[in-house]
Amino acid sequence: MNAGSKDKNATRRAFLKGAVAAGATVTGTAALTSAKAGPDPLISEVQEWASGLGDGVDATPYGLPVRFEGDVIRRNVEWLTADTISSINFTPIHALDGTITPQGCAFERHHSGAIELKKQDYRLMINGLVDRPLVFSYADLERFPRENHVYFCECAANTGMEWAGAQLNGVQFTHGMIHNMEYSGVPLKTLLNEAGLGEAGNLADKWIYVEGADASSNGRSIPMEKALDDVLVAFKANGEALRKEHGYPVRLVVPGWEGNLWVKWLRRVEVANGPVESREETSKYTDTLEDGVSRKWTWVMDAKSVVTSPSPQSPILHGPGPLVINGLAWSGRGSITGVDVSIDGGMNWRPARLAREGESKALSRFYLDVNWDGTEMLLQSRARDDTGYVQPTKRQLREARGENSIYHNNCIQTWWVRSNGEAENVEVS
Amino acid sequence: MNAGSKDKNATRRAFLKGAVAAGATVTGTAALTSAKAGPDPLISEVQEWASGLGDGVDATPYGLPVRFEGDVIRRNVEWLTADTISSINFTPIHALDGTITPQGCAFERHHSGAIELKKQDYRLMINGLVDRPLVFSYADLERFPRENHVYFCECAANTGMEWAGAQLNGVQFTHGMIHNMEYSGVPLKTLLNEAGLGEAGNLADKWIYVEGADASSNGRSIPMEKALDDVLVAFKANGEALRKEHGYPVRLVVPGWEGNLWVKWLRRVEVANGPVESREETSKYTDTLEDGVSRKWTWVMDAKSVVTSPSPQSPILHGPGPLVINGLAWSGRGSITGVDVSIDGGMNWRPARLAREGESKALSRFYLDVNWDGTEMLLQSRARDDTGYVQPTKRQLREARGENSIYHNNCIQTWWVRSNGEAENVEVS
Repeated sequence: MNAGSKDKNATRRAFLKGAVAAGATVTGTAALTSAKAGPDPLISEVQEWASGLGDGVDATPYGLPVRFEGDVIRRNVEWLTADTISSINFTPIHALDGTITPQGCAFERHHSGAIELKKQDYRLMINGLVDRPLVFSYADLERFPRENHVYFCECAANTGMEWAGAQLNGVQFTHGMIHNMEYSGVPLKTLLNEAGLGEAGNLADKWIYVEGADASSNGRSIPMEKALDDVLVAFKANGEALRKEHGYPVRLVVPGWEGNLWVKWLRRVEVANGPVESREETSKYTDTLEDGVSRKWTWVMDAKSVVTSPSPQSPILHGPGPLVINGLAWSGRGSITGVDVSIDGGMNWRPARLAREGESKALSRFYLDVNWDGTEMLLQSRARDDTGYVQPTKRQLREARGENSIYHNNCIQTWWVRSNGEAENVEVS
Repeated sequence: MNAGSKDKNATRRAFLKGAVAAGATVTGTAALTSAKAGPDPLISEVQEWASGLGDGVDATPYGLPVRFEGDVIRRNVEWLTADTISSINFTPIHALDGTITPQGCAFERHHSGAIELKKQDYRLMINGLVDRPLVFSYADLERFPRENHVYFCECAANTGMEWAGAQLNGVQFTHGMIHNMEYSGVPLKTLLNEAGLGEAGNLADKWIYVEGADASSNGRSIPMEKALDDVLVAFKANGEALRKEHGYPVRLVVPGWEGNLWVKWLRRVEVANGPVESREETSKYTDTLEDGVSRKWTWVMDAKSVVTSPSPQSPILHGPGPLVINGLAWSGRGSITGVDVSIDGGMNWRPARLAREGESKALSRFYLDVNWDGTEMLLQSRARDDTGYVQPTKRQLREARGENSIYHNNCIQTWWVRSNGEAENVEVS
């Protein structure tokens, strides 16, 4: 293709004029700016990446991100917990787009560390008020009819540090205790029916108690109504086996409800007459109000959204002109029907564009394409779900629940974006 | 929770009775069998994974699959190509479920190896019959309105070795040149309009020529109609930056069309009066018929499906009884509306269950839940798309196109499953 390469040289020359001509357009301006920054590899005669061979297909039997993306990783906050065994790390949502969270950077929360459990050693017991207690091996679970669903999993403590005004400077840390994956598994209902619920009598007042195989066991109580609704016993996420840190080989998926219920390394499901009132649902994962009374059984994650870019970890790196405001929205009660964005701290709102129609109990990606004038912004987003619920302001939430809570903070987040493009976590009164 | 642990001991005793009782049910039988295999960790007093602490949240800043899943990787076939620089590896679809393919195990096809190209060095030129040639930096691309779509990418040669009856013994190798990811990027249409198409005049007979920044450049011609339809200039897959082997930082996404058009490390888009007739669309990626005449411009990947389990790499490991027949279906022309499954080599067909409603130009997961009687099966699947097209048999395809082709083999695949659960790639006449 000599002709072809001649063309290329021709068009490279053309580009120099073109870029100048393009200077008249906003995008052209950006292109010109970047083209001016350092020698342009398109113009230089030798491009190292085009002058030799790259890696073969045997180089990465299982691939990892390119080294230039080495900062797009889960991070924990050292001062948050006494150690990393019972702790949290955060999804780098400031650097992600779309809605799927890769398992490799999906946040983790463990109570006694991520254990290693072989499929061959795995057992799931269903006992208590059932017609016949059963134990399932991993191979048994694979023989039941399977379902696939994309669901978000959010820690009840996500954004919790905002209650009393602590302002972590990064959306990864304020909102990163969340992931969104396509889960494959067996409905819990199917396994409960296999064990038989006749023994349980009236199911309306029955509960299940679920626990994991790790030392903490992380036992939680769930009303039978939810157990028989959409709860999954999952063994794949995003098509693949669960990662060790996500509960390999089997975890519970409790759509729309707080992540602590999504028991990893699921070991046992007991059918009982009432809740156990375990540690994880009394001293933890309850919400203490202003008057000292604690709300309990606050399982559902209400509608919430956040702008992921621009944000403190994702500043604007260009001047005025076209800017993509980018964010995530979700609701544990159903689908996101709309997201509004404000650039003036909530005085005026503009409808954002949902990248796809909202899916029930799954992340939605929203965009607002603006022509930034280069002045500072107070960026906010406000989600709506198909129940009509609207994401509250921080003030509204504090008026209702005070400042003693740790969990279930779904308030509107504000980023102060300066004219230099840098962003900061702030409160607007 | 002493009471709790007492309960656990109680229920472990109960399980012993339970398992026997459960022996009456098929699933119980399976459970009993597996419980009998070796000491049951549920019964033993010490479970190593529950008696200590696991890994902390700082153990895997970026996570990899658990070591027990080390065989779920991309594999190449050494005899297929002269070297691994211009070669293919295959997605381990025999071991995956759901529809999303993680980037780390999504098949690769390179023509001169996977190159390493920094975002800072990246440029995309649009030239040819445009009002003003433009060059875009990566930062420029991020300023245009973005879209997210889940699309499959299938190599035109996928299943090609079946034409002449070569029968690779594994669905990873017969059908694994495919992946399905959520892509985020800018519509190519937006960038073409930025450069201006007035110069091109009547667009109906115009083409674009796209090439990559690697040494092969892998140039391909695409009709303007498709370029202005749903083609994406993508920079994220499954939320994350593209992996190096998938075209970091930018690749072309050409929904429903053969993978060779999905140019990686996208460098240039030229608007032209006609196709270039490059190497990759003349000596390669054309389909030679029985009479020696070659079909060209055969871009669309027609409706296709395959049973991924049971299959040669995923034999049935249990006896008669409940069995999940599991597979994938897709169409480059639209959505999958149905999949039929036959266990007798195509004499009788039963409708499979789609895990979710079919999405346009994306993988669908289907299941057929059967009660296997333990006798041998000739397993087949047959996909239908929303154009009414039905996946053909191998015989129908050969009658139409002979056996000289390499590309676009979308015929019905047959697995011979023996009564011992092992499966083999066979042809049925």
